[in-house]
Amino acid sequence: MLITFEGIDGCGKSTISKEVFEELKKRGFDVILSREPGVTAVGQKIREMVLLSSDSMDNMTEVLLFAANRSQHVAEVIAPSISEGKIVILDRYVDSSIVYQGYARQVGMEDVYAINRYAIKGYLPDITVIIDTPPEIAMKRMKDKNPDRIEKEGLSFQKKLQKGFQLLVEFFPKRNFLFVDGSLSVSEIKNEVMDYIKKIAGL
Amino acid sequence: MLITFEGIDGCGKSTISKEVFEELKKRGFDVILSREPGVTAVGQKIREMVLLSSDSMDNMTEVLLFAANRSQHVAEVIAPSISEGKIVILDRYVDSSIVYQGYARQVGMEDVYAINRYAIKGYLPDITVIIDTPPEIAMKRMKDKNPDRIEKEGLSFQKKLQKGFQLLVEFFPKRNFLFVDGSLSVSEIKNEVMDYIKKIAGL
Repeated sequence: MLITFEGIDGCGKSTISKEVFEELKKRGFDVILSREPGVTAVGQKIREMVLLSSDSMDNMTEVLLFAANRSQHVAEVIAPSISEGKIVILDRYVDSSIVYQGYARQVGMEDVYAINRYAIKGYLPDITVIIDTPPEIAMKRMKDKNPDRIEKEGLSFQKKLQKGFQLLVEFFPKRNFLFVDGSLSVSEIKNEVMDYIKKIAGL
Repeated sequence: MLITFEGIDGCGKSTISKEVFEELKKRGFDVILSREPGVTAVGQKIREMVLLSSDSMDNMTEVLLFAANRSQHVAEVIAPSISEGKIVILDRYVDSSIVYQGYARQVGMEDVYAINRYAIKGYLPDITVIIDTPPEIAMKRMKDKNPDRIEKEGLSFQKKLQKGFQLLVEFFPKRNFLFVDGSLSVSEIKNEVMDYIKKIAGL
């Protein structure tokens, strides 16, 4: 069982994924929480390169680096955990690439997914929760922290991302997506997510 | 005009590509010599990660990292040089990925090429010279230098690579490949390469 949390920068997905992780653990499930980019040793270096580098980076280079990171994450963490029967919760995964680089940076959603199919090795999410927070609210939340290279791109970019996440439903008609209003309280969002997981997965 | 030099580790392609570069320059052509992996700032970091890292790396991660490096190399160096009318000579390019990861590491030549089609952005070589040096001779040459992670894999791996380079001719029936016996002298090899370039490109 693979559950992913997605959304624009500052949408609240890190908080919510942690809450849902704790809740599932409390209910006795064997569950892990991981995030992209980063986590593996190789992934840490890629994360630094992509997010912190001031080198000008070609869009396709960025797509391939995120895919390399994901490939290693699947090989080291996701695939072994799932074969041990664990529930894996991810803060960002393949949909972030499809939306950020494929849609917002106009590399093409089809092409980005074609590359990422090699990275994910068959592990598409069973459930994807999209925290749909108005970009204006999300950007206010971001002001407190030091933004990375991608986060610095401003409101119009975040609006493109929001639209991109909405397009995922057409792009993957057979997958399970839950859109949650990100302006609700953390506990309201958590309840909505838990209800959806129960409905889809019977947990 | 894009001319690439390929072959197993220690085959002599770096020496020969430099000789051919100097010869073309001497004859008045506007020519640049570049190599993979490395060269761009992003590429340098990827090179360190792939070749020098002791972290265990998934095969597909390696494919994607080399492709990311190549994408940046094409964007920053190869595409601009070719549009300025230069001859670009490369010490390793897409065929190295197809042979090393696709064939020798068994990721699949088709899959590695499918990924790399995004990286090369249409820039397939006009001429590819494969320096076909018996692995036993190539390995002796390597003893003097400090081998990287991939070069350390020994004779049977180098033999697989040699076979992989031979398979490229079937894989790309329409491309121009020259196989040169790498046990010949540098000047003999250079002459053979220059004759081939003249025949194919009329230079």
